[in-house]
Amino acid sequence: MKESGIGSQKIIRRKGEGEFEYLPDELTIEEPLEIRVGRKPIATTMRTPGHDEELGAGFLLSEGIVHARDQIANILISGENRVVMELTDGLTLKLNSTERFGTISSSCGLCGKTTIDAIRQNFPAVRSNDIRIDIKTLLSLPETLRNAQSDFARTGGIHAAGIFDVGGKLKIAREDIGRHNAVDKAIGRAFLDELLPLERHLLLVSGRASFEIIQKALAAGIPIVAAVSAPSSLAVDLARDSNQTLIGFLRPPTFNIYTHIERVIFDSA
Amino acid sequence: MKESGIGSQKIIRRKGEGEFEYLPDELTIEEPLEIRVGRKPIATTMRTPGHDEELGAGFLLSEGIVHARDQIANILISGENRVVMELTDGLTLKLNSTERFGTISSSCGLCGKTTIDAIRQNFPAVRSNDIRIDIKTLLSLPETLRNAQSDFARTGGIHAAGIFDVGGKLKIAREDIGRHNAVDKAIGRAFLDELLPLERHLLLVSGRASFEIIQKALAAGIPIVAAVSAPSSLAVDLARDSNQTLIGFLRPPTFNIYTHIERVIFDSA
Repeated sequence: MKESGIGSQKIIRRKGEGEFEYLPDELTIEEPLEIRVGRKPIATTMRTPGHDEELGAGFLLSEGIVHARDQIANILISGENRVVMELTDGLTLKLNSTERFGTISSSCGLCGKTTIDAIRQNFPAVRSNDIRIDIKTLLSLPETLRNAQSDFARTGGIHAAGIFDVGGKLKIAREDIGRHNAVDKAIGRAFLDELLPLERHLLLVSGRASFEIIQKALAAGIPIVAAVSAPSSLAVDLARDSNQTLIGFLRPPTFNIYTHIERVIFDSA
Repeated sequence: MKESGIGSQKIIRRKGEGEFEYLPDELTIEEPLEIRVGRKPIATTMRTPGHDEELGAGFLLSEGIVHARDQIANILISGENRVVMELTDGLTLKLNSTERFGTISSSCGLCGKTTIDAIRQNFPAVRSNDIRIDIKTLLSLPETLRNAQSDFARTGGIHAAGIFDVGGKLKIAREDIGRHNAVDKAIGRAFLDELLPLERHLLLVSGRASFEIIQKALAAGIPIVAAVSAPSSLAVDLARDSNQTLIGFLRPPTFNIYTHIERVIFDSA
């Protein structure tokens, strides 16, 4: 069952007053993945198995360890729960990155850095000032992403991340039990396919937008980030500072715009 | 605004077809917190400010660094984003714990360990075999926890964790932008108040139940864990192995029981 990221077991379900049933149920698989750069373990994350090479690539990109596709020479899957990223000869881990590894994990991309300035040293603001999205397209995105998910995923709480073009076409969709992993897998795929920077694209996440989601979008050069739920204070601060449009609570027909409203076309509404 | 964990800013909200308004909005505060043991930084987590000493205590407990209240000599808040945990003289970080710090963060308590066995070396199975909860009480818990939250928290996606007695009385409630932090704060408070093990208590989390949530409950000796959303595969495995009752999708009048059903009293239903 691991291939699909879904496992099953028997549960007792209370259906209502006095009604119980004993039935098979599906569960999202959660397993640790150790990410190594060469022989050095740099992080372990709790993830849903599958697309591990993308997760490794997206993680290295998000953390500023690699910037270009040709910096990764090889990716090895070692057993079920380890991915080994081999960098190009001569490329070594930058010290400032290495220092941060003390506390990095899937859900703590910022760890060891405490300011937006520090992030911005690795990732300049996006430059896509001519990209705009109309409201009709924006409102169509959540349903498009949901349709790309399995029935179980839609109901069971697995997170989804989708990379769309500004016409609303879904280019890459990934799911994971960890929000940040889903984003790492999606941008990792784009990175491996040499599609970066994604200057004409949009990232949609199924849950909340934390600081780290914005950071990952920035690493991939994505100018517009939309979330189905709330952004955090620091997410808004980073998006504003990085020239990224941040949309939250995207629940048609409503949504909120937090930063850089100039990329939303209002006259089509 | 930091005291309440909520900030504000102006946003553009689309209310419906062609309707927009420009209005103040509330945001959950997200800031990094560095946790030190003495002079040694051991983790940085993205958290909602407030109750940082509880977060530090809960984290040290969850990670198996401390087991008893008197092992913490002092807790210092250093600036806005650092908490320093001073251990009792003579107590040093265990090597096996220290090794794991390479990849620990708020949302990755398992990092560096890859098996349930490894967790179980630090935390024996719970022994509360005489504790039971009736269904009426169980069904009352989500509303009780929601009522303890602020209006904003209920709608804005901040996570909540509540420790209840088996009669359904809420003893400790904590909120945080990070699910794991909310749990660390709640069990940290109980730990600092010398209430552990919480053998006659239940933990309710507002979102999903990951492996780490079960691990944290186990560290506090909690025999029953309930979640409003789905558990993961590894959460179910750990709960089964640790003699913990795990309830998911607790959305009255329905819920699912995944493990150790014997603690649920059916005849009252």
